[in-house]
Amino acid sequence: MKNNKLLIVGTMAFDEIITPTQASGKILGGAGTYIGLAASYAAAEIGIVSVIGDDFTDQYTSLLTERNIDLSGVTKVSGQNSFYWKGKYHDNMNKRDTLDTQLNVLADFDPVVPDHFKDASVVMLGNLDPAVQQKVLDQLVPNSDRVVLLDTMNFWMDIAMPKLLDVIKHIDVITINDEEALQLSGKTNLVSAAKAIHELGPEYVIIKKGEHGALLFYQDHPFYAPALPLQEVIDPTGAGDSFAGGLSGYLAAHDQLSAISIKQGILHGTAAASICVGAMGTEGLEHAEKQTFLSQLHKLERLRTVS
Amino acid sequence: MKNNKLLIVGTMAFDEIITPTQASGKILGGAGTYIGLAASYAAAEIGIVSVIGDDFTDQYTSLLTERNIDLSGVTKVSGQNSFYWKGKYHDNMNKRDTLDTQLNVLADFDPVVPDHFKDASVVMLGNLDPAVQQKVLDQLVPNSDRVVLLDTMNFWMDIAMPKLLDVIKHIDVITINDEEALQLSGKTNLVSAAKAIHELGPEYVIIKKGEHGALLFYQDHPFYAPALPLQEVIDPTGAGDSFAGGLSGYLAAHDQLSAISIKQGILHGTAAASICVGAMGTEGLEHAEKQTFLSQLHKLERLRTVS
Repeated sequence: MKNNKLLIVGTMAFDEIITPTQASGKILGGAGTYIGLAASYAAAEIGIVSVIGDDFTDQYTSLLTERNIDLSGVTKVSGQNSFYWKGKYHDNMNKRDTLDTQLNVLADFDPVVPDHFKDASVVMLGNLDPAVQQKVLDQLVPNSDRVVLLDTMNFWMDIAMPKLLDVIKHIDVITINDEEALQLSGKTNLVSAAKAIHELGPEYVIIKKGEHGALLFYQDHPFYAPALPLQEVIDPTGAGDSFAGGLSGYLAAHDQLSAISIKQGILHGTAAASICVGAMGTEGLEHAEKQTFLSQLHKLERLRTVS
Repeated sequence: MKNNKLLIVGTMAFDEIITPTQASGKILGGAGTYIGLAASYAAAEIGIVSVIGDDFTDQYTSLLTERNIDLSGVTKVSGQNSFYWKGKYHDNMNKRDTLDTQLNVLADFDPVVPDHFKDASVVMLGNLDPAVQQKVLDQLVPNSDRVVLLDTMNFWMDIAMPKLLDVIKHIDVITINDEEALQLSGKTNLVSAAKAIHELGPEYVIIKKGEHGALLFYQDHPFYAPALPLQEVIDPTGAGDSFAGGLSGYLAAHDQLSAISIKQGILHGTAAASICVGAMGTEGLEHAEKQTFLSQLHKLERLRTVS
């Protein structure tokens, strides 16, 4: 039965981000955080499964609970710090180098899905160790109307491809960037890559192209959602997570899964991503009210409209 | 007064194209050729102003006259060959190196606009020496409903920027690729670049992004036309010219210039470009009937549609 619950698994973490013009210092980050904030624009009941350390104080959790995000699935480990990532963007912001990664609490993350989210209609498996993504799936109770989305990245293909392929078999929607789609499929163009990825499991293959928008491949009918042209990108960190959040939030709040609801969801994801990249870290999503989100959606509609 | 005449200035030439999988040998090419063929899907009266040599025999001119393209503005110079370009694409087809350029007849090209095209409502200045583009404009008779489009490339910015800026002052629509838009404007992102280019003259700035589609900037309202995702790109040569042809043909055949007609024109240009890149050189456009063109337009519409 369709309910409006969105279960998210993803890191709640700290980042240190260096762009050509700014250095953030240690700030709030993590896929789970971005996904949750972005999804919270939708009328969905949202819960996050994650793990945090002592440094993830109430100051940070309150940013999520204020948006009515349920954190009963977040384990706090004493005596350790949260996952930490430090990265530096190249001049054109299209590439970045990882300068430091500290797994900390993430090393032994054993996800626990709260009982009241085990029947969630929408499950968003954020970019994370596929073994952890699988453990979340294993705890769910059956729901014939469930939609499972998965986001991943090249790192997991490099070190855990067999496990990743196992999880991908059981999901409905994958979001993946263009280079990673080629890597996952072993193909050299996106159309062939999408076909190959369909055969791995997901009925809906969404390829994220950053500033060039996103492509949905469903059966033989591609759909193209452009990204809003921006005068300035402050920080691309979390754009893909925000996209996943806007998309999965929309799906949780709305109709049964269909090509149309996925396309609408992609537009909502695009709007969330456009807010994300306009500020450092999660700042954009933290400060943007629903009205701002709707205004981005409206701009997107104009961008796509001839008349 | 609006008529349905489209005047094109552009090279009619020969290319030799090497892609990662094919070598074309000497084949038909030239911006004027691509633009004319692509425009011929529209119900417009089309004339080309160009210059050709002895090697441009009836076998080639007939490919254009069969499409009802008026070649009375094409000067044939005896004892010389047509313009010739040889290039090689890199593995991903996104970059190419020029291996040989022989100006031949193009060195002394003095364009002559036939009397019956001097009142053309739509003038497409193909990628060419801006001094030649200006000479075409100088021969026109006034038409208050005229739309002038210009296509150009980095080569002319490098060697003839002042003259190019002169011509750009007097045009309505510029089509330019993303990197060249940054070069022309001196900006580092497309939104700022479009604003700066507006100030140089053109009310409509169309930025071509290849496989990522095209962006129109008009006043403060961008419009994004995606490109059709293709399983295989055989040869990108002439894609930008085909785009210009589809666009200018549409404008000649339809309403007065407006944001809506430009957007429709961009979709027609995109459809023509998708046909172009599916075969070597002009082969795709030569063989595609109107029905194929309409089918590409239909696919594009689906690609853009949520419901």
